[in-house]
Amino acid sequence: MTDLLWQKPGVKVDARIQRFLAGEDVLLDRAFFLHDIEASRAHAAGLAAIGILGADELEALERELDVLADDFRAGRFVLDERFEDGHSAIEARLTERLGDAGRRIHTGRSRNDQILVATRLWLKARLDELASLCRECAEVALARAEAEQALPMPGYTHLQRAVVSSAGMWWAGWAEAFIDDAERARQTRAWVDANPLGSAAGYGVNLPLPREATTQRLGFARMQVAATYAQLSRGKFELAAIEALAMALLDLRRLAWDLSLFTSAEFGFVALPAEYTTGSSIMPNKRNPDVVELMRASYASVAAARTEIEQVLSLPSGYHRDLQFTKGALVHAFGRGLGALALLPDLLRNLDWKPDPMRAGLDRSMFATDLAVDLARQGMPFRDAYRLAADPARWPEGDPEASLRARVSPGAAGDLRLDLLRTRLRAL
Amino acid sequence: MTDLLWQKPGVKVDARIQRFLAGEDVLLDRAFFLHDIEASRAHAAGLAAIGILGADELEALERELDVLADDFRAGRFVLDERFEDGHSAIEARLTERLGDAGRRIHTGRSRNDQILVATRLWLKARLDELASLCRECAEVALARAEAEQALPMPGYTHLQRAVVSSAGMWWAGWAEAFIDDAERARQTRAWVDANPLGSAAGYGVNLPLPREATTQRLGFARMQVAATYAQLSRGKFELAAIEALAMALLDLRRLAWDLSLFTSAEFGFVALPAEYTTGSSIMPNKRNPDVVELMRASYASVAAARTEIEQVLSLPSGYHRDLQFTKGALVHAFGRGLGALALLPDLLRNLDWKPDPMRAGLDRSMFATDLAVDLARQGMPFRDAYRLAADPARWPEGDPEASLRARVSPGAAGDLRLDLLRTRLRAL
Amino acid sequence: MTDLLWQKPGVKVDARIQRFLAGEDVLLDRAFFLHDIEASRAHAAGLAAIGILGADELEALERELDVLADDFRAGRFVLDERFEDGHSAIEARLTERLGDAGRRIHTGRSRNDQILVATRLWLKARLDELASLCRECAEVALARAEAEQALPMPGYTHLQRAVVSSAGMWWAGWAEAFIDDAERARQTRAWVDANPLGSAAGYGVNLPLPREATTQRLGFARMQVAATYAQLSRGKFELAAIEALAMALLDLRRLAWDLSLFTSAEFGFVALPAEYTTGSSIMPNKRNPDVVELMRASYASVAAARTEIEQVLSLPSGYHRDLQFTKGALVHAFGRGLGALALLPDLLRNLDWKPDPMRAGLDRSMFATDLAVDLARQGMPFRDAYRLAADPARWPEGDPEASLRARVSPGAAGDLRLDLLRTRLRAL
Amino acid sequence: MTDLLWQKPGVKVDARIQRFLAGEDVLLDRAFFLHDIEASRAHAAGLAAIGILGADELEALERELDVLADDFRAGRFVLDERFEDGHSAIEARLTERLGDAGRRIHTGRSRNDQILVATRLWLKARLDELASLCRECAEVALARAEAEQALPMPGYTHLQRAVVSSAGMWWAGWAEAFIDDAERARQTRAWVDANPLGSAAGYGVNLPLPREATTQRLGFARMQVAATYAQLSRGKFELAAIEALAMALLDLRRLAWDLSLFTSAEFGFVALPAEYTTGSSIMPNKRNPDVVELMRASYASVAAARTEIEQVLSLPSGYHRDLQFTKGALVHAFGRGLGALALLPDLLRNLDWKPDPMRAGLDRSMFATDLAVDLARQGMPFRDAYRLAADPARWPEGDPEASLRARVSPGAAGDLRLDLLRTRLRAL
Repeated sequence: MTDLLWQKPGVKVDARIQRFLAGEDVLLDRAFFLHDIEASRAHAAGLAAIGILGADELEALERELDVLADDFRAGRFVLDERFEDGHSAIEARLTERLGDAGRRIHTGRSRNDQILVATRLWLKARLDELASLCRECAEVALARAEAEQALPMPGYTHLQRAVVSSAGMWWAGWAEAFIDDAERARQTRAWVDANPLGSAAGYGVNLPLPREATTQRLGFARMQVAATYAQLSRGKFELAAIEALAMALLDLRRLAWDLSLFTSAEFGFVALPAEYTTGSSIMPNKRNPDVVELMRASYASVAAARTEIEQVLSLPSGYHRDLQFTKGALVHAFGRGLGALALLPDLLRNLDWKPDPMRAGLDRSMFATDLAVDLARQGMPFRDAYRLAADPARWPEGDPEASLRARVSPGAAGDLRLDLLRTRLRAL
Repeated sequence: MTDLLWQKPGVKVDARIQRFLAGEDVLLDRAFFLHDIEASRAHAAGLAAIGILGADELEALERELDVLADDFRAGRFVLDERFEDGHSAIEARLTERLGDAGRRIHTGRSRNDQILVATRLWLKARLDELASLCRECAEVALARAEAEQALPMPGYTHLQRAVVSSAGMWWAGWAEAFIDDAERARQTRAWVDANPLGSAAGYGVNLPLPREATTQRLGFARMQVAATYAQLSRGKFELAAIEALAMALLDLRRLAWDLSLFTSAEFGFVALPAEYTTGSSIMPNKRNPDVVELMRASYASVAAARTEIEQVLSLPSGYHRDLQFTKGALVHAFGRGLGALALLPDLLRNLDWKPDPMRAGLDRSMFATDLAVDLARQGMPFRDAYRLAADPARWPEGDPEASLRARVSPGAAGDLRLDLLRTRLRAL
Repeated sequence: MTDLLWQKPGVKVDARIQRFLAGEDVLLDRAFFLHDIEASRAHAAGLAAIGILGADELEALERELDVLADDFRAGRFVLDERFEDGHSAIEARLTERLGDAGRRIHTGRSRNDQILVATRLWLKARLDELASLCRECAEVALARAEAEQALPMPGYTHLQRAVVSSAGMWWAGWAEAFIDDAERARQTRAWVDANPLGSAAGYGVNLPLPREATTQRLGFARMQVAATYAQLSRGKFELAAIEALAMALLDLRRLAWDLSLFTSAEFGFVALPAEYTTGSSIMPNKRNPDVVELMRASYASVAAARTEIEQVLSLPSGYHRDLQFTKGALVHAFGRGLGALALLPDLLRNLDWKPDPMRAGLDRSMFATDLAVDLARQGMPFRDAYRLAADPARWPEGDPEASLRARVSPGAAGDLRLDLLRTRLRAL
Repeated sequence: MTDLLWQKPGVKVDARIQRFLAGEDVLLDRAFFLHDIEASRAHAAGLAAIGILGADELEALERELDVLADDFRAGRFVLDERFEDGHSAIEARLTERLGDAGRRIHTGRSRNDQILVATRLWLKARLDELASLCRECAEVALARAEAEQALPMPGYTHLQRAVVSSAGMWWAGWAEAFIDDAERARQTRAWVDANPLGSAAGYGVNLPLPREATTQRLGFARMQVAATYAQLSRGKFELAAIEALAMALLDLRRLAWDLSLFTSAEFGFVALPAEYTTGSSIMPNKRNPDVVELMRASYASVAAARTEIEQVLSLPSGYHRDLQFTKGALVHAFGRGLGALALLPDLLRNLDWKPDPMRAGLDRSMFATDLAVDLARQGMPFRDAYRLAADPARWPEGDPEASLRARVSPGAAGDLRLDLLRTRLRAL
C-alpha cells in the first residue's frame, strides 16, 4: 500500500489490521471512481474561484483528472490494493504528476465528502437506469397486453382456479406495475438530487466554498444545505434508492413466480426460448428455467443490502467507520437488481404462450361468479345469487371469449383501459 | 362467530382451525373499519348509478352506513370475534337492518377489494400524519437553529472530538433531515393515491362499474387501472409507505442516540424535563431517559414490519391468504412509528442545553483543522499544512465563537443558509 | 394507573408520555405473569434463607403468591393498564395484602431481573412445546413414509419433472427435517437453561443471595454467573430461541409450498379435508387452502420478530429501555409459529393423495437418468451415457414401481433407511 | 468458458444470459474447492467399492485429485471464469488428464450433491474456527477479570450512572458471553455434522452407493438419510451456522459499543494502541477507533446474509437455481464475521484502562442503592428504604473498593465466581 494520507511519524501501523480496515474497499471504489474524479474536477474549479488554486494549477488538475479518467476506463490505471481507497489514489496521482497543485486538491474537503458526492452521482445514474429498464418492461408488457387481449387463460386466487382471465389482463397488470416502479425510481431520483460537496467532514470549513456553483456544475437540482445533514444522509439516501429498486424487484419476484409455475409441465402455459434454460449434470432430460429462478431470487439480495445498511445506521450523528460497509451493500443490491432487470425485457418479448393448455385450464366452475353477478344484475340480491351459483349443477358450459367480453368493469378483460396506462407511460 | 359469508350446507367447519385463520384479524380491522364503511358508501352509489340498487335502497344503505360509523365511533358497535372480519360485519349489519338492500351491497365486490380500498385510504391518512409530524419537527429544529447559532459545542466524528461546532449546526442538520422526510412522505402519498375499488377479486366483474366516479368520490388522484395489478399492489404499497415512515424513524434513531449520549453524565450537554425520564425499582438515585430510548428502538419495529411483509410477498400473482399477515405488520409499524414521532416536537422544544459542559468539551486539538485550512488559504499546499498542523505544539488556544464565525462554507456555522431550509419547509 | 414504584415527590408525570412508555407492555406481561410469580416465590425463599424475611413472612408471601396465581388463572385478577407492568402488579398486590412483607419482596431484585427470569422460564416452556410439536410432525411423517413407500409420484427439481419419486421419499424428507428441528429446539433449550435470578440491575447486590439454591428450586441447569452477562443475554437468548423456532417454520414454509402446489387443479396430487379450506365472498365455486397459506406465511412473522430484536440490540452493555420492545416481538413470533405448527400434525394425518394424477405426471423423460446410470453401471463412462440418454428416442416406457425399487442408494426409494430415522426420533 | 457439461447439440446459448447465470459463482467456489476435491476423492472410493471404477482408475483419480489440490493451493491452477463452476472444473480436469476415468467420476452424483457436501465440510471448518476464536476471547476476558477484580469503574444502566462496578465485572460478563458463544458454535457444528454425499439430485440413484463408508471417510458424525432432505437442508444448515456466528457478533457489537464510548474523550476510560486507530484526511488532530467501529458494524453483514438466504428459501421442495445465491451470502457473513473476531483477542489483550477517569465517574449517587439494600438488611422494608435512600442528602461519600467487596451476591464484584466460568471454558 502507498503511504497513508493521514500517517504521522512514529505512529505504528499493523499490516493485519490495515487489511481488516481496507477490506474490499478499494475494489468497490472502482464503481465510484469516475464520479469521484468528476467531483474532484468541480471542487478544483471551486478552489480556483476562491483563489486557493491558480488558473494554471486548475488547468493542470483538470487535464490530469481527465487523463486519469481515460487511463482508468482504458485499463491503463488499475485501482487496487496499492491504495487505501479511490480518494487517496486520486490525490496520490495528482501529487505525483503535478506536485503542489496535487497537494492542494484536498483543501476544504475530506474523504467523507468525496464518497458522499461520488455515491450521490452514482445513485442518480443507477436510478436513471432503473427507471429506464422499468419503462422498457412496461412498454413490452403493454404492447403484448394490446396484442393478446383475446387470449383466454385461467385466472387464479390461492393458486386455485377462480374465473376466466386473459393474457391481456395478465400483461396489463405487469405494465401498470412497472409504470409505478419507473415512477418510484423517478421520484426517488428527485429526492436524492442534492449536492453534499463542500460539507467536508460534516462541519464545513473556514473557506467560502462556492457551493452553488459546484452544485450547478455537477448537475444537482439543489444543494444539500446543512453540513451536518450531509453526514446524516449517508446510508439514508442509499436506503431510499434501494427501496426504489426493491419495488421493481418485488414485482419481478412475483412475475418470475408466475413464469416458474407456467413453465412447469403441470401448468404448461409458457415456453421459454432454450437460451433461458439450462441442463443438469446428472439428468439428461432436464431443461430448467434457471434465468427465471435467479430473477426471482434477486429480491433477496436487494433486501439483504437494506438489512446491512439499516443495521449499520444505529449510530449517533457524525461520521463513523461503520458506514464503510454501506458501500459493498449498495453495489451488491444494484449489481444483482439491475442485472436481473436488464434481461427482463427480452425475456418478456420472447416468451410464448401455449393456448391449448391455457384453454384446457378453463373448467365450468370458472363461470360460476359470472353467473352470480348476472343473476344480481337481473334483480336477485347478490347474496342469494351467490348461494344459487354455488351449485355445480347450475354451472354453464361457458364460452371463455364471451366471458372476457362481458367483463366490462374498467380494468377488466372487457374494458382494459390500456390507453390510460399508455398515457402514464408516455408521461414518464 | 356469526355465519361465514361463504359457508355452504354440508361443509364441515372446525373451531380450532377457524381460530387459527381468524387470528387477531377482526381486531386489526378496527383500524380500517371507518374507511371500509366510507368505501362501501361509494360502492353503493356506484351500484345505484348502474341500476343494481334503487334510489331508496341507496338512501337506506347510506343512512345505515352512517349510523354504523357513528355507532362504531361511539362504542355502541364493537367489532370483535363475533365477526370473521370487518367486511363481513358491515354486510351482516346492513342485511340485518335492511334485508335485500344489504344482500345487494356486495354485488361486484370481494373482500379483497374491500381491504385494498380501506387500506389505501388508511395509508393516505397515515402518510399525511407522517408528513405533518415531520414538518412540525423540522419547524422546531429550524427555529432553534436560528436561535442557537452562536452556542458552541463539540463536533464529533467517530465519537472523537473533531472541530468546534454549534447548537445551530446540530439543529440545522435535523431540520433538513425532517424536511426531506416530510417530502418523502408527500411523494409516497402521491404514489399510492390510486383507487383499487372495482377490481373485485383481481379480475373485475361483468358489470360496468363506474370506477371514475367512485375514484372521484373517494378523493383518489387516479384509478388503479388493471384489476390484476390491484392484487399485485397489496403489500407493495404498504412497503412503500413503511419506507417513508422508516426514513423519519431512521433519523429519529440517530437523534435519539445523540440525546442518549448528551444526557449521560459524561457528556452532560442536555437536560431533559423530568417527565421524559423514569426511575428504577431498585436504584433510588436513577432518572433514566426512557422516552429517548424507546424512540430510538422504534425503528426496529418499523423494520420488523417490513421484514414481515416482504417475506410474505414471495408469491405468484393473485390473492393468497398469506397476505392477511401484512395487516398486523402495517398497524404495528405505524403505531410504533407515529407514536414515537408524535412526542418528538415537544421533546425538541423542551430540551435544555448545558452550555458549560459543552464549552468544556472544546479542547485545543479542535482548532487544528481550522489552522491547516488557514495555512492553505495563505498559500501552503494543504497536504503540507496538514502535516504542520498535526503537531500539538502548534495548536492555538482558540476562540470557539471566532472559529464558528470563520466557518463560512455554505451550510457551516458561519453561513448556515437557514433561509434555504425555511423556503423548502414552507413549500411543503 | 396505580402509583409508579419509583415515583418521588415533586417529579412531574405526563399522562401522554406514560402511555407511550407503557405501550402494550402490561398486556404482554400476561404471558409471563405466572413465571414471574413462580420466580418471586423462589426469590422470597432465598430472602428468608439469608434472614431478610422471617419464616412467617415467607409463608404468607408464598400463600399470597399462590392465591394470586390462582386468581390470575381463573380470571379473578386481571392484569391490565391499572399497572405499569406485571412486576409492579405483584409487589402492589403483596403489599396490599401483607404490608411490610410485601414491601420486602423486592429486596435485592430489580424489574430487569424479574423479566429476565420470567422470560427465561417462558422460553424453556416454549422450546419444550416446539420440540414436542416437531417430534409429533416427524412421527406422522415417518409413519406415512413407512406406509406409502410404494406410491409413485413425480420428483421435481426447478419445478420441472426430473425422476420418478414416491410418497415415501417425500414423507421421509419431512420426517428427517422435523427430527432435526426437534433436536435444534432441544439443543437451544439446553443452551438457554441458565438462571439470571439474583443479578439485580446487572451488578448484583450487597447481599449473599443464595443463587445456587434458587437455581435448583426453579429447575435451571446452571446459574448464569456474571451479573453483567445476565443483562447482555437479554434479547440474545430470545434470538436463539427464535432461531430454533425459525428452523421448524422454514421447513413448514417449504412443506406448505408443496401442498399449495399439490392442491392446485394443475398438479392435483392432494385433497385436503374441507375444514382446512375456506370459501370466497364473491366466487361461489371456490375452496381455498387458506390454512396451508397461513402456515406458509408464518415464517415471515418469526423473521420479523428476529429483525425487531436484533435491530434493538445495537447497544452498549447494561440495561436500556429499548429492550422493552423485545418482549412483543418474542410473543408475536412464538404465537404465530407455534400456532401454525400446532395444526400441522392433524393436517399431515388427514391429507389424501390422489394416485391417478400422481401417476399421470410420470412421463418418459423421467426414466432417462436411470437409463444413464444403468449404462454407467454396465461400463460406459457416465458422461458418455449421459449424452446417449439425452436422446428422447432412447427413453424407455418405464415402470415406476421398478424404478423405485431399483433406486437403492441409501436414503432413496429403494432403500429408505427409515429405521435410522426411527432410532433418532426415539432418542429425542 | 469451457463447454457446459449439460450442453446438447443444437441448443442455443446466449453469452449475456450465461454471464447472468454464472455471476460470481465460480469465484465463490474457490472457498469450497478443496472440500469439493476431498469429497470427490471419497465418492471415487465409493464408486470403486461398488465396481463402477477399477482399482487403477481409483488410484489415478486419487492421485490427480491430490495434484489438483496442490496446484490450486500453490496457485498453479486458477479457478476462474473459464469454468461454469468448481464442480465442472474438477470433472474437466480429470477428464483431460485421465480420459474415461474422469468421465466416470460423476456417476451417481449431481452438482447439487457436490455443493452440498463441500459446503457442509466448509461449515464444519468455519464453526470450528468460530468456536476457537470465541474460546480465545473468553480466555482473555477471564484472565483479565481475574487480574482486575479490584479496579473500580462506573456501572451504567440507560447510559446513566447506576452503581459502582469493576473492570472485573465488566470482563466477567464478556467471558461468560464468549463461553456461551463457543458452546453455541459447538452445538451447531454437531447439528450440521451430517453427510449428504450420495443424495444425487435429491432422489438418490439406482446404484448401491456405500454411503456409510463415505460418511466415515469424510469424518461426518452421521449420514443425512433422506435424499429429499439433503436438498431441503440447503440453506437451512447455512442459516443455523450463521445464527451461531451471529451470537458471537451480537456480543461483539455490544462490546465494540462499550469501547467506542470508553475511548471517547468524555468517558476516557480506555486507551487503544495506536495501530487500532486511524487518522483523518482533513483533520490533523484525529485518532479514530476505526477497528472497533468496523467490528461493531460486522454484525450487519451477518444479518444481511441471513436475510438473503431466508428470503431465497421460500420455495417448494427440491432444488431451484435460487439457491445459488445462498453461497455468496454465506461467504460474506463468515468473511466479515470471522475477520472481525480474529482481531478481537489481541485487541482485548492490548487495551489499557485509565483508572483516574474511571474513578472520577463514581459520584455519590452511585452508593444510594447499596444504602437502600443495607437498610433493608437491617430490617427496614425495602420499599421504605428505597424512599429514604432517594434523598441525596443521605448519600454517603462512599468507598468504591468497599462497595465492590460488599457486593457479595454470587456473580457480583464481591464474589465473581470466576472458577465456575473457568470450569465451563475448560470443558468446551
